[in-house]
Amino acid sequence: MRPIELRSDNSAGVPDPILDAIHSANAGSALAYGADEVTARLEARVREVFEHPTARVFPVTSGTAGNALGLSSLSPPWGAVMCHETAHILNAEANATSLLSSGAQMIGLAGDDHQIAVDSLRAALDGAGWDDPHHTQPAVLSFTQPTDMGTVYPIEVISELCSVARASGLRAHLDGARLANAISSLGCAPADVTWRAGIDVFTLGATKNGAMSAEAIVSFDDAASKELVYRTKRSGHVTSKMRFQSAQIEAYLTDGLWLRLAANSNEMMRRLSDGLSALDVEVANRVDANMAFLRLPDEVIDRLEADDLLFYRIAPGVIRFVTSWQTTVDDVDAALDRMSKALHHETATPARAVDPVPAAGR
Amino acid sequence: MRPIELRSDNSAGVPDPILDAIHSANAGSALAYGADEVTARLEARVREVFEHPTARVFPVTSGTAGNALGLSSLSPPWGAVMCHETAHILNAEANATSLLSSGAQMIGLAGDDHQIAVDSLRAALDGAGWDDPHHTQPAVLSFTQPTDMGTVYPIEVISELCSVARASGLRAHLDGARLANAISSLGCAPADVTWRAGIDVFTLGATKNGAMSAEAIVSFDDAASKELVYRTKRSGHVTSKMRFQSAQIEAYLTDGLWLRLAANSNEMMRRLSDGLSALDVEVANRVDANMAFLRLPDEVIDRLEADDLLFYRIAPGVIRFVTSWQTTVDDVDAALDRMSKALHHETATPARAVDPVPAAGR
Amino acid sequence: MRPIELRSDNSAGVPDPILDAIHSANAGSALAYGADEVTARLEARVREVFEHPTARVFPVTSGTAGNALGLSSLSPPWGAVMCHETAHILNAEANATSLLSSGAQMIGLAGDDHQIAVDSLRAALDGAGWDDPHHTQPAVLSFTQPTDMGTVYPIEVISELCSVARASGLRAHLDGARLANAISSLGCAPADVTWRAGIDVFTLGATKNGAMSAEAIVSFDDAASKELVYRTKRSGHVTSKMRFQSAQIEAYLTDGLWLRLAANSNEMMRRLSDGLSALDVEVANRVDANMAFLRLPDEVIDRLEADDLLFYRIAPGVIRFVTSWQTTVDDVDAALDRMSKALHHETATPARAVDPVPAAGR
Amino acid sequence: MRPIELRSDNSAGVPDPILDAIHSANAGSALAYGADEVTARLEARVREVFEHPTARVFPVTSGTAGNALGLSSLSPPWGAVMCHETAHILNAEANATSLLSSGAQMIGLAGDDHQIAVDSLRAALDGAGWDDPHHTQPAVLSFTQPTDMGTVYPIEVISELCSVARASGLRAHLDGARLANAISSLGCAPADVTWRAGIDVFTLGATKNGAMSAEAIVSFDDAASKELVYRTKRSGHVTSKMRFQSAQIEAYLTDGLWLRLAANSNEMMRRLSDGLSALDVEVANRVDANMAFLRLPDEVIDRLEADDLLFYRIAPGVIRFVTSWQTTVDDVDAALDRMSKALHHETATPARAVDPVPAAGR
Repeated sequence: MRPIELRSDNSAGVPDPILDAIHSANAGSALAYGADEVTARLEARVREVFEHPTARVFPVTSGTAGNALGLSSLSPPWGAVMCHETAHILNAEANATSLLSSGAQMIGLAGDDHQIAVDSLRAALDGAGWDDPHHTQPAVLSFTQPTDMGTVYPIEVISELCSVARASGLRAHLDGARLANAISSLGCAPADVTWRAGIDVFTLGATKNGAMSAEAIVSFDDAASKELVYRTKRSGHVTSKMRFQSAQIEAYLTDGLWLRLAANSNEMMRRLSDGLSALDVEVANRVDANMAFLRLPDEVIDRLEADDLLFYRIAPGVIRFVTSWQTTVDDVDAALDRMSKALHHETATPARAVDPVPAAGR
Repeated sequence: MRPIELRSDNSAGVPDPILDAIHSANAGSALAYGADEVTARLEARVREVFEHPTARVFPVTSGTAGNALGLSSLSPPWGAVMCHETAHILNAEANATSLLSSGAQMIGLAGDDHQIAVDSLRAALDGAGWDDPHHTQPAVLSFTQPTDMGTVYPIEVISELCSVARASGLRAHLDGARLANAISSLGCAPADVTWRAGIDVFTLGATKNGAMSAEAIVSFDDAASKELVYRTKRSGHVTSKMRFQSAQIEAYLTDGLWLRLAANSNEMMRRLSDGLSALDVEVANRVDANMAFLRLPDEVIDRLEADDLLFYRIAPGVIRFVTSWQTTVDDVDAALDRMSKALHHETATPARAVDPVPAAGR
Repeated sequence: MRPIELRSDNSAGVPDPILDAIHSANAGSALAYGADEVTARLEARVREVFEHPTARVFPVTSGTAGNALGLSSLSPPWGAVMCHETAHILNAEANATSLLSSGAQMIGLAGDDHQIAVDSLRAALDGAGWDDPHHTQPAVLSFTQPTDMGTVYPIEVISELCSVARASGLRAHLDGARLANAISSLGCAPADVTWRAGIDVFTLGATKNGAMSAEAIVSFDDAASKELVYRTKRSGHVTSKMRFQSAQIEAYLTDGLWLRLAANSNEMMRRLSDGLSALDVEVANRVDANMAFLRLPDEVIDRLEADDLLFYRIAPGVIRFVTSWQTTVDDVDAALDRMSKALHHETATPARAVDPVPAAGR
Repeated sequence: MRPIELRSDNSAGVPDPILDAIHSANAGSALAYGADEVTARLEARVREVFEHPTARVFPVTSGTAGNALGLSSLSPPWGAVMCHETAHILNAEANATSLLSSGAQMIGLAGDDHQIAVDSLRAALDGAGWDDPHHTQPAVLSFTQPTDMGTVYPIEVISELCSVARASGLRAHLDGARLANAISSLGCAPADVTWRAGIDVFTLGATKNGAMSAEAIVSFDDAASKELVYRTKRSGHVTSKMRFQSAQIEAYLTDGLWLRLAANSNEMMRRLSDGLSALDVEVANRVDANMAFLRLPDEVIDRLEADDLLFYRIAPGVIRFVTSWQTTVDDVDAALDRMSKALHHETATPARAVDPVPAAGR
């Protein structure tokens, strides 16, 4: 059968406007290491899109780099980064933040729907050993937006958490690996869910939503921006032909491309989850963006796999579906059709070996 | 006038075969983080081109990342990396190696033509405080090939230096930011100047010679390879859509593209330096590859700049020309023509402000 | 009233045999940095006391240094150190392990009595992302013996946990800040609770039990020992007049001094907790060594403080008593007498301001 | 024969007033980790002796710790520390500064008498790649006072160098491993050679001049002081029974003890070098403090060694003599007598094996 890709938005390709931008950037020669015109234009575009006159943008090539460098510009080596206990930065980035910040500690907080609860944050701040050098000092509050479970923080929750954090001297960071999906879901302005809500530095997250190898750190904090000039270089994240990354992100942010791409993945997920509900499949998470976690009998999961539906197994009896900018109505309908058959034992395809599922795939 | 680009091969664009490879990689979906078919094919290609059955390749996105990570896989935190006192890793990579190796020290050695002299190496090894924890322990010998002055190490010199180093327990690393230019200049097999000469780990250096944001670490050392799996990830150098980098490097290494691109830049530099000699311009370095350093009166330099010749000022009275895969015979001849006029005061163009020259541009 | 010291064994002084050893070491001159005779004798003594022919000893000056350096010799930078979720290394050492190991992550495991449960360890090992570079790789299992709650791990529990860990390739570490109290409580040979149970490297923990500024790392693992030679130096933990530390630890380990000192603190705690039980005071922990946590009404706590009983407030309604080698029967009986009065409102002393309690004091 | 100790002041013991202070500190109990009265008194004493109302003092246990932590509080991870090319921090501290600062680079400057020349500093600052992230950014100027060659910087030279450095935004650090010898030699106030000359942070250096395991960082810079609270702890340099170190340093700085001890070593070196001159022995350095480097035929060196004169061989034909607070007139006269005999072949003692000379001994 035709494989249907629902493993990760990371598995998707690159849309034409971004490829076109790469071609355009290839005309003529340019200064290296970001001293080129495309990168200058990108910064102007970021300031316009995020409505912030002094925002700085630092193209990098992975989300892990974006998060770890962004956090390291906000935390001293003896700082603590508070995040949800299921946060990607805590569980799936190989402790990169500790390497690049030279020792900052990540502290996981509890909360429903994979979102930090205000009470958890307050309790952690109350119990921190402030000014006691035996303890790391809370320095940053970090959000994953949307969370790794596909739930989107409401703006007012981010605002409240940022206020609580700021009252104790912390700054705020956002891992926006799927930020466009959150903005599209919230229907808000990009500024509303970032600096207006209290975020100082965030990872823009273009790759999952269509870029090729282009992520970016955006900083609204001048002190962090100054550090990032050096931190990006000394960790090897200043590429010499930066214009090709900048061109991708510029195109991504132009004419709302990023939000249109995200709107598609969100909409396809809505169609998919509606169809799953109609089939009485249990969806374990609140479907706010482009991700669903399903509880299914293992033999149904095996049949789906045998029918070339591509997805990740999260735990026994739990699988994950992720839609992308590339997912089509046909994909969704075909997926639902195979699900229906798998639920009703109608497949005759023998089981076959599947690709190993990377535990950190998201 | 039409600008002639001689600032850096970093300023050049991307040739069609590499762009085509990106387009091909964009078909269908693929697993992220290097678990894709293109990356698997790349490793096979590297093994074939370098004639080494267990070579591993780790795509990264900058030369600094390639060098610092490669070195960190060869040196303990208390190790010393010995290199020429003018080496790029020592002078222009922001001490990235010290960050990513957690403290290794770089020790500069003397030698003519920006190449490590065997006697300097022997003296440094003799004087090292072996087994004395007050001193970092020599762990790696690192070559820049070609050097930042455009000279190419002969194979037998690399072999001899590696032998001396290995006798003291060191492993050998090569910064191949322009490796293809060296191989083209030497007319040797890629294996001859790498593992057959004693190199354990090297940076492949595709970007200056035509790739977009694609460098790679190649390791012939199993212990280093094992570390690199983790070191690349935790420093944020494992991109999620790695297939697009892998595709570039695969194309680069296929059908000798890399060597043809480098042959052009070397040949254009030869034509340029021959022409400069004919004009009695003093070239300060041995022109082995695609780089020339010229001594000129400052007013001549100003006139060249006014005539839209693009180059870097290295010091008062010293400028640098670099040719690239994109440099044409017309470019070279036009540059020589402008040089001739600048030497003979024939220009009437008023001086204009120039771009600031990044000191680390190479 | 006469103050009764029950805050911490850290608050105690230094017994005569250790002071005498310092005086003896002061005769004549000696080579610096551990190349002296006293340090050589110390190593011989450690091998004898721990019945291990190749044990190495590295004098350091704090428990934090001992633990963080010991752990860094057992974990790669991308490793994970598994310990109880209340472990001192995780909660009260300022993430020193992450600094000195260059990024290792500490993972807290659950278990009663502040001791790692075998099931928790198995579950954590099963769920680790083995060989997946997105995840830190479990490398070390670390015990606090006794725990920060004053409970002592039985030898067979340590053995079982070490076996489980070793089967997955981990090595084992022990934070022995109060190791002598554990050995005295268990009545076992020092080897039984260290290498015979599976421990590779441990912190000896002399300071709380009588030394002045003398801790030591003991390693039974040759690879770790080799690293420690360099790791201790480059973190500034090789003192020039090391003989004065070595002399203290030599005296400490000679003729069972360490076990006699610990036996006193354990015995005094037993007398104290028996007396508290007779007064119907609730002791929250199992009293295996020299530490008790009491639940008391806040007004009783205030009265105790007003009566010059020195202790730490751990939380509202919870205080901690620690006895030391210096605690006497008179101290214990006076403490019980004041407790009895405080419980029965007999004190007339007005409340007074107290020293701020360092949260990390232990 | 009676051994005469001239290897290092590190080899000397501890004078009575410091031992007495340890005994006094042993009375009663005290809060741990520096929250004790002795440590509070020490800070008051430092402020008095250095005539600075906000100076902070951080007891540590080694000179390497003092220097590396002090420097790390003055340099960002991407900073450069400028020092003489023979400085101890560059050549004999295992790159500890790079570990504890998370990557700062040390840059050696030239200058006669092992002292930084103003012109070298100016040239290095002019050539630094300011604001260019490819280059580490000059952040600290560090002096060794006296130098490892026993020469003392005149106050006005320190002032001038600090002025030049400060004009470029650098702060100044002093490695005072033998600071008392310098102050005694200069006959100045302690403030004159530290903050009044422009020093922000320095290592006090008590151990070589009589303390047991007691060094200290003194900071006049509030921002550095704030960092040092955390930096000392997380590197394991906050000892629990800190009062014993504080007591030593307090006694050391009381009633001019430190300067009297240093005056003795300086005076004994003067007597020794005068005697050597009278014997026509070539002294290679300017003898400003307690150290002399002698050029002698190797057979003379062998005879001295055979006669139980204890010293270090620095290079073939070069040995080093260091006097200490403990060196007596008898020691000096005996050393001169043996030298005289060795020069005139009068010894009959057969050569014997000598201790290996630690290359980093100073």
